[in-house]
Amino acid sequence: MIDTVPAYGLQSTNISQQEILQRKKTAVLVDGVILNGPIVDSKAGEKFVEDACKIIMEEVIQKATDVTEKVCEWQPPEKLKKLLDLEMRDTGEPHQRLLQLCQDVIRYSVKTNHPRFYNQLYAGMDYYSLVARFITEALNPSIYTYEVSPVFLLVEEAVLKKMIEFIGWKEGDGIFNPGGSVSNMYAMNLARYKFCPDIKEKGLSGLPRLVLFTSEECHYSMKKAASFLGIGTQNVYFIKTDERGKMIPEELEKQVQRARKEGAAPFLVSATAGTTVLGAFDPLDEIADICEKHGLWLHVDASWGGSALMSKKHRKLLHGIHRADSVAWNPHKMLMAGIQCCALLVKDNSDLLKKCYSANASYLFQQDKFYDVSYDTGDKSIQCSRRPDAFKFWMMWKALGTTGLEERVNRAHALASYLVDEIKKREGFRLLLEPEYSNICFWYIPPSMRNMEEGPKFWEKIHRVAPIIKERMMKKGSMMLGYQPHHGKVNFFRQIVISPQVSREDMDLLLNEIDLLGGDL
Amino acid sequence: MIDTVPAYGLQSTNISQQEILQRKKTAVLVDGVILNGPIVDSKAGEKFVEDACKIIMEEVIQKATDVTEKVCEWQPPEKLKKLLDLEMRDTGEPHQRLLQLCQDVIRYSVKTNHPRFYNQLYAGMDYYSLVARFITEALNPSIYTYEVSPVFLLVEEAVLKKMIEFIGWKEGDGIFNPGGSVSNMYAMNLARYKFCPDIKEKGLSGLPRLVLFTSEECHYSMKKAASFLGIGTQNVYFIKTDERGKMIPEELEKQVQRARKEGAAPFLVSATAGTTVLGAFDPLDEIADICEKHGLWLHVDASWGGSALMSKKHRKLLHGIHRADSVAWNPHKMLMAGIQCCALLVKDNSDLLKKCYSANASYLFQQDKFYDVSYDTGDKSIQCSRRPDAFKFWMMWKALGTTGLEERVNRAHALASYLVDEIKKREGFRLLLEPEYSNICFWYIPPSMRNMEEGPKFWEKIHRVAPIIKERMMKKGSMMLGYQPHHGKVNFFRQIVISPQVSREDMDLLLNEIDLLGGDL
Repeated sequence: MIDTVPAYGLQSTNISQQEILQRKKTAVLVDGVILNGPIVDSKAGEKFVEDACKIIMEEVIQKATDVTEKVCEWQPPEKLKKLLDLEMRDTGEPHQRLLQLCQDVIRYSVKTNHPRFYNQLYAGMDYYSLVARFITEALNPSIYTYEVSPVFLLVEEAVLKKMIEFIGWKEGDGIFNPGGSVSNMYAMNLARYKFCPDIKEKGLSGLPRLVLFTSEECHYSMKKAASFLGIGTQNVYFIKTDERGKMIPEELEKQVQRARKEGAAPFLVSATAGTTVLGAFDPLDEIADICEKHGLWLHVDASWGGSALMSKKHRKLLHGIHRADSVAWNPHKMLMAGIQCCALLVKDNSDLLKKCYSANASYLFQQDKFYDVSYDTGDKSIQCSRRPDAFKFWMMWKALGTTGLEERVNRAHALASYLVDEIKKREGFRLLLEPEYSNICFWYIPPSMRNMEEGPKFWEKIHRVAPIIKERMMKKGSMMLGYQPHHGKVNFFRQIVISPQVSREDMDLLLNEIDLLGGDL
Repeated sequence: MIDTVPAYGLQSTNISQQEILQRKKTAVLVDGVILNGPIVDSKAGEKFVEDACKIIMEEVIQKATDVTEKVCEWQPPEKLKKLLDLEMRDTGEPHQRLLQLCQDVIRYSVKTNHPRFYNQLYAGMDYYSLVARFITEALNPSIYTYEVSPVFLLVEEAVLKKMIEFIGWKEGDGIFNPGGSVSNMYAMNLARYKFCPDIKEKGLSGLPRLVLFTSEECHYSMKKAASFLGIGTQNVYFIKTDERGKMIPEELEKQVQRARKEGAAPFLVSATAGTTVLGAFDPLDEIADICEKHGLWLHVDASWGGSALMSKKHRKLLHGIHRADSVAWNPHKMLMAGIQCCALLVKDNSDLLKKCYSANASYLFQQDKFYDVSYDTGDKSIQCSRRPDAFKFWMMWKALGTTGLEERVNRAHALASYLVDEIKKREGFRLLLEPEYSNICFWYIPPSMRNMEEGPKFWEKIHRVAPIIKERMMKKGSMMLGYQPHHGKVNFFRQIVISPQVSREDMDLLLNEIDLLGGDL
């Protein structure tokens, strides 16, 4: 049914013999290339897209909510290499073959949309954001100037404004960028610029050691950022956390004083709202007091926890966030806007972002354009080409309304509460700590160990349980769930609840499945 | 036709009364949220995606090759805000309304796929890469671990290997990342790490001033990178270029010596293969000699020009590139892989990327996994979530073969040659310089000025010509073409030829249209 005629080249099906003759007559040959007419067979191309879309609809979208499907079809790397035909050759492949490749790619990919994918801080399928992403891919825009991206720049402005409102600032600025890690880098550099604008031109050489503070539960991107920005990982002072994973303000105060005594230059505190493993929220209000006292920039990495701002019930987790100077927030996580959708938001409204980041490229940001060039916001970015990631969040927001987004957050919390209660009730499951958010961390204790004394040997054995169960669940394809050792605690499961496709029944099944997979250990 | 029943909430159409009753019976209420069953109406969601896909197919994909369509439908910002309904509200909108929004977004967006979009270093429509991008969006992967992205990590490995082969290295490493600017940052940080690994931990404070060299025609991201990485823009030494925009090796030698005399620490030369405005290629072989002599890392920013490596005829433009330590190359530009598709490639094969960038997050990169964790390549990145951008290039390469990609490059060059000849023949057009690549830079001299003496007054008037013609073409929607002033030269047009959808006839039309739009000036 699908034609196997090469879609590329003059011999394609929808160009008639007459046309070819006509072209030959008026042919212009330059460097051996015939320059008449386009060389793409657009009809065949469109047909290919159509056929592929059918596969995507059937194999990904329609199966996204089907719990009878596998989450993953595990193959070890060397075997998967053989199953996929990865090699790129001199000649192209026919459409039929390419469609088979599409099917293989889908088959062996992990279904992150699946209701039982709990492995990362994203999951599920949002149909509205998906449509926005399809539009983006088809239009292929880059958002640096209003001239080439009028709609997407206005959408970004509107979304940023709304996010700023939810943080509780009267005004502000921001930029969508490729990830929470990059957002944190933006913030770190911005805080540094505010601290000493000369660094933009002169660099750090010859300056006193800059020091920043963040909790020991922070995301690993803080270290990456400090290293990338030339600050150095040793100049990230990690602040102790309490038993729930929250930064201890008194410890922060001590560390700031220590840095001062050392002759270093403290410039930034990065608090975390929703830590990656435990889902803990730092006490922002108390941290803000310390920042104010010492004149430090307060950044809040709310990449994960920011979405709680959408919920009237749960936004108290971020109490004090309006006092931050900058906030990282990823709607691609709990709100399901699709990877990536991440904003850095800045309280300053004096064009600090632009002052800090601009390079004034004259080929892009011409000042003699016929429209208001303040809409050419690309110079606020570290990127040149940039994707319109705000658009997918916007489309979702339009479709669901604030109420719908709020419902997502409330439901994730309620499901998490339910799961916590079940864990407490069930034999063989032990909660690591009472969660604040939708990260539920727990150990599974196999039947053979339930009467064992809880000494070093016990924990050594428990450490090996989660990896084995993980291997088994992946090979079975029944679900995916993360595990890790963490700050002296041996391997435990981290269950993330996100998707509105997930129900109480899935939570029950999760525990049953772990029991089933690990019962013999 | 499209149902207006809210797709979100329990009252959706495909949940029967009986089911609702059943749910009520077994309902579990936590925090006021009913946790039974999923709350997404997947049937309605799928229908929405289907309807939207029809619009995308008709309004974007099928129109992409239609020259009777407008390239853009210009609206000034304030008016466009009113035309679009940008506001995000408490309640969601029905599907019918959302589909209208999709249509509006498409209507007012610039058609970068249009055969007459020559405004940036990307253009056109590749059906194969588009399908890959749709698959990516539907599967929503993040590539850090083999566990969650088995296929896409293997694909990235295969594509990097092939690109490395085309550069002419025997081995190497690399990473896809969000843009040429970010690739350049990666390279700069890597060169710095190689120069002094301690910087990762200790930072730049107390170190001598690090200095890097690049030509005055380089991309503006070099300045952004130097500032972001804490090196400082003043420590970017800009090397003079010849009349064609190529770095002058003797000038480089002088500047390296100057930096040494100043007591600074030179560590990196960034050559450009395909400059943004003029499309110039630095003499890599001679620059490599100087780098070797002084022990400097050689980075080649081939974001734009790298694609010439695919052509046996034109790869000589990058003669000597195999001597580089790192290369930035964006297949989303001339090869049309879709924004963004950018790789940083590194000659080193001693895991330098990983050593430089790793932070060893234990929740993601567990070492006790059941498979070979060397496939978990995410720790080489500055990002955490990362998109599988190699995949779209791979799909395109599979479909077209190396020959098809080569044909794209050869055809763009041939079209550029043709246009250059036409510009030389035509009255009122003046070439800025003989191009090496597919950037054709030229002035348009309106009839009223053709007998004017070429003094300062003449150039002052010419400076105002391009902006006026640009305004007129955008308001008419007939085509889009860039212009800029550049290093003492007044505003000139920069025509970029990329798309295989473009033909000789389009080149003729381009000149006719400029004549038509500017004939009265």
